[in-house]
Amino acid sequence: MKLLKQKILNEGKVLSDTVLKVDSFLNHQVDPQLMLNIGETFTNLFSSEGITKILTLESSGIAPSTMAGLKLRVPVIFARKRKSLTLVDDLYSANIYSFTKKETNEISVSKDYISSNDTVLIIDDFLANGQAALGLLDIVEQAGASLAGFGIVIEKGFQNGGNLLRERGIRVESLANIASLSNGKVTFK
Amino acid sequence: MKLLKQKILNEGKVLSDTVLKVDSFLNHQVDPQLMLNIGETFTNLFSSEGITKILTLESSGIAPSTMAGLKLRVPVIFARKRKSLTLVDDLYSANIYSFTKKETNEISVSKDYISSNDTVLIIDDFLANGQAALGLLDIVEQAGASLAGFGIVIEKGFQNGGNLLRERGIRVESLANIASLSNGKVTFK
Repeated sequence: MKLLKQKILNEGKVLSDTVLKVDSFLNHQVDPQLMLNIGETFTNLFSSEGITKILTLESSGIAPSTMAGLKLRVPVIFARKRKSLTLVDDLYSANIYSFTKKETNEISVSKDYISSNDTVLIIDDFLANGQAALGLLDIVEQAGASLAGFGIVIEKGFQNGGNLLRERGIRVESLANIASLSNGKVTFK
Repeated sequence: MKLLKQKILNEGKVLSDTVLKVDSFLNHQVDPQLMLNIGETFTNLFSSEGITKILTLESSGIAPSTMAGLKLRVPVIFARKRKSLTLVDDLYSANIYSFTKKETNEISVSKDYISSNDTVLIIDDFLANGQAALGLLDIVEQAGASLAGFGIVIEKGFQNGGNLLRERGIRVESLANIASLSNGKVTFK
């Protein structure tokens, strides 16, 4: 997705060989028009899959997922990283380790919102080592739902998450796939 | 906003005299078309205010804010509840106490994204006792930005947050204002 790659080149900050900061349009400040374009692109890629629900993870997955949900005309569920007082139903849950934040979070989804009748598209802002992706996949499997695939805004193609998913035969569509962040420079695959 | 009130009546769960659960369309599962309608309504209400930025709080404020940002053609900033490894800039921060979760969170916004040149619309999913609202207001004031007002999806009009803001002369637009949750029943003002 050319517009996204241009935005990454113009505004992304390479903090190390593994960390790309895109706080100006995705992870802290959000560019709503770009999110709409991302949602439309996911919709074009997955429109024939019979998707009934989008599953994402709070917080940075919510904006692109909501735009994709608008275009695909399906609800979006954001997995919660902590149980809240009002989330008291039966839950699907999975543990994910964040290498960025160096902590394990339990993510949860109410059983009310995904069932074995659903075909789920998982959307997330980043795919790196795949820990969050595997947690979301675990939840889809617990629900007995079908998986249409993963829609990823930015894949760090030099880390192993994409391989972990594709080796299982899962469809992964990344709108920008980064080959390297070496020498402070973003190189796409 | 009639559509929102109908959705609250149809799908909201009254858990106590103070807790309304709207996990089926706002706080866990999100209805993207409703979010678009909410964004359009905020846009109509605030279109003459010269808004340059929308400020919200992760996670449930992100979907309605992104739709409002799409329609107002301005960026959305979501305040972070915890500092992340990649959020290393100078920060505006404020402490907010959540009566729902019974904990204090520090919320932070990078100084890169709000300045004294901005006119900010604050959007949030709920306004109850006003703790989150005052925290977001504090951040706008630290930035020296102008405040256009608050766009609230659901106000608990029987709690004090709305008064706290309106007494200061702040414009608060709530799309659904709840007078009472007594006897398991939602009554609007």
